[in-house]
Amino acid sequence: MRIPGLIDPHVHMREPGGEHKEDWDTGTRAALAGGVTMLLAMPNTRPSVTDRETLRSALAAAASKAHCDYAQNLGAGSGNLMDAASLAPYTGALKMYLDQTFGTLKLDNMYDWMRHARNWPAGSPLCVHAEGPSLATAILLAQVYNRPVHLCHISLRSEIELIRAAKERGIPVTCEVTPHHLFLSTADIPSIGLGRSEVRPRLSSPNDVQAMWDNLDVIDCFATDHAPHTLAEKNGENPPPGFPGLESALPLYLTAVSQGRLTMDDVITRCVTNPRRIFHLPEQPETYVEIDPAETWTFSAANTFTRCGWTPYEGYRMTGRVTSVTLRGRVVYKDGKILSTPGTGRNIRPALPE
Amino acid sequence: MRIPGLIDPHVHMREPGGEHKEDWDTGTRAALAGGVTMLLAMPNTRPSVTDRETLRSALAAAASKAHCDYAQNLGAGSGNLMDAASLAPYTGALKMYLDQTFGTLKLDNMYDWMRHARNWPAGSPLCVHAEGPSLATAILLAQVYNRPVHLCHISLRSEIELIRAAKERGIPVTCEVTPHHLFLSTADIPSIGLGRSEVRPRLSSPNDVQAMWDNLDVIDCFATDHAPHTLAEKNGENPPPGFPGLESALPLYLTAVSQGRLTMDDVITRCVTNPRRIFHLPEQPETYVEIDPAETWTFSAANTFTRCGWTPYEGYRMTGRVTSVTLRGRVVYKDGKILSTPGTGRNIRPALPE
Repeated sequence: MRIPGLIDPHVHMREPGGEHKEDWDTGTRAALAGGVTMLLAMPNTRPSVTDRETLRSALAAAASKAHCDYAQNLGAGSGNLMDAASLAPYTGALKMYLDQTFGTLKLDNMYDWMRHARNWPAGSPLCVHAEGPSLATAILLAQVYNRPVHLCHISLRSEIELIRAAKERGIPVTCEVTPHHLFLSTADIPSIGLGRSEVRPRLSSPNDVQAMWDNLDVIDCFATDHAPHTLAEKNGENPPPGFPGLESALPLYLTAVSQGRLTMDDVITRCVTNPRRIFHLPEQPETYVEIDPAETWTFSAANTFTRCGWTPYEGYRMTGRVTSVTLRGRVVYKDGKILSTPGTGRNIRPALPE
Repeated sequence: MRIPGLIDPHVHMREPGGEHKEDWDTGTRAALAGGVTMLLAMPNTRPSVTDRETLRSALAAAASKAHCDYAQNLGAGSGNLMDAASLAPYTGALKMYLDQTFGTLKLDNMYDWMRHARNWPAGSPLCVHAEGPSLATAILLAQVYNRPVHLCHISLRSEIELIRAAKERGIPVTCEVTPHHLFLSTADIPSIGLGRSEVRPRLSSPNDVQAMWDNLDVIDCFATDHAPHTLAEKNGENPPPGFPGLESALPLYLTAVSQGRLTMDDVITRCVTNPRRIFHLPEQPETYVEIDPAETWTFSAANTFTRCGWTPYEGYRMTGRVTSVTLRGRVVYKDGKILSTPGTGRNIRPALPE
C-alpha cells in the first residue's frame, strides 16, 4: 500500500550542541525509517537558532547531512523582534516558547508574545509551545491580531475543548497532538520509568487522552515532537524532558488503523495534507511510502536509527510497517536500510542570502 | 458642585474574619466620606463567600452595619460550580481569582475557569482578578463563550494594549483601573515603604502608569480595590498586599481634574455610569455628592474612617473635597462627619430566599 511521504512539523535535531543525542544525519535517517520525508526542525539547540548566524549554521549542518527534506524554525527571543521578522522567508516557522521546556528560549514577558505575534509576517507560520493560560493567550493573539497561530502538542481536555470553542468562533488557530499524548498516559509512567517519562507537556491522565480521541476532528496535525535524549540522561538525576518519536509514530497510527480507531484518511490528513497547508510546504514530487498494513512486528530501540538509544514503546506489538520510502524518485529506505547519502535532503525554503 | 453618588465596584470589607482591619460599619463610613454611595464587596473574606451560608452571613452583617448601598460578590471555587450559578441573582457579581492575592480563592485549574465562565449566567456580571496570560485567558473566555467579562485592576501596558485590541475586535470585555495604578508607581515605593507598598497587582513602572493615561478611553471604570490591612500588618514580616482607597480616590480624581488631566465627565463616566451599566446596578434616587472642586487640603490617615489607620497618600495635597453626601434624600455625611446610622445602606440585589 502506497501513501504520501509524511510531514512532521515538530522535530528536535539537537544539532548544534547536542550531537551526542542526535544530529541531522541520525535524525533524518530516523525520519525516513518512520516514513517522514519532510520535517520542521525546532530552534532550541545550543546555541538556539534565533538570528542570521545561528540560522545559517543550522542550515549548513542540515545541507550536508540531511536525508529528508526540511526547514529550520526560528526561535522567538526577547531580543530578536525585528531580526526574526526579516528572516521569516528562510525559516519553517517562528517558534514561541511561552512555557518552560528543554532549552533557554522561554519568553517570560507577555508583551514579547504580543510584539512577536504582531511583527512576524501574517503570511509566515507561527507556532507556540503553550500550556493552559499561555495556550489561551496564544489563541487570543490569533484572534486580536487576526493571524494564524499553530498550537503545538496539545495534551489536556481543557485545552482541546478551548480550541474547539475557538475554532467554532472562527479564530484562526490550528493544533497538533503527539503520539505520546494519544497512546500513552500517566498510567504508563510506572512501566516506562519515572525519569524516562519526563516530557513537556507531561504525560496526561487517561481522561485527557480520551479527550484527544473524542475531539479528533479538532486535531489538525499529528506531530512527533521527536525530542531525543540519551538513555543515560533519561536515567540520570535530572532527566531532561522528551521522547524520541519519529520511528514509532507511523507504526502506532497504522496499528490504530488496524484496530479501527483511526482511518488511513485520518492519518494522511493530519500527517500530510494539513501540515502542508498550515506551514505552506511544497509538494514533494514522486515521493511516497510503501507500507505493509498487515505486518505485525515488535518495536524495539535496538532497531532504530535515532542516536538516543531508547524508546518509550519498547516491546510494543505494532500492526503495519514501513517497507520502503521513495524521495523525489529515488528509493531512500528499504527493508530496514537507509539507501540515501547525507545531504540528500533539501531545504524547502529559499536559501538564506549571503 | 453636585455630582452623582459614586459606585465602587471593587471593595474589600474584611468581614467576616478581618474585623480588626475593617468591617461593614467602618468600611461603608469610609465609602461615604469618599463620596461612594454604592459598592460591591469582594468575597475573599475568612471564610470566603462561596455558598449560600457564607453569602447569607455576609449579607446579614452588611444589613445591620452598612452606611451605603451594596451588593456582595460571590467567589468562584473549584467546588461551587453549580451552587454559584444558582446564587447569581442575589450577588453583585461572580469573582474569579485567576492569580494569587490575599485569601484562598485562587483557581489553579484552567478547566475551572472555563466551567465557571460557561455556567455563570451570561446576564449576571462576572469579574476576574487576572494578570498577564490569565488576563488574556479571561478575554478569550469572553470571546468564545460570548459572555461579558469585567477585568479588575489592570496595571500593565501589555494588558491595556491587549484589552484595546480585544475591544476593537468586539470582544465583550470591560476593565477597571485603581487609583494606585494611576497615581502611584514603582518610583513611589521608597517613600511609601517596601512592605507597605505590597499590593496585587503590584505597583507598576512609570511607563505602565503612562500607558493607563494614554489609553484612558479603554478604561471603563475607576475602582479603588480598597483593601485595608493594619499598619502593624503592613510594617510586619509578611506584609499582606493591599491599600485602603475609598477616601482618597475621589480627591485624587478631583485633583487630576483641577490639573486638566481628567475632566469631571471622565470621572462620572468611570465612577457612576459605566459601573452601573456593567454590573446592572439600579439608580439611587435623590442621591448625590456635594464637592468643593477648588478647596486645597492635605490628606491624612488621621482623618479617615477606615479602621486600617494608614494611607499610601499621607500628606498629599489635594484639590477638591467632598463636603456632603446625600443618600436617598437623607444627608448621610457632612463636613467630615457621618450622620447616618449603621444599617442605612441597602442590598441592591433581591433578598436571598430563606
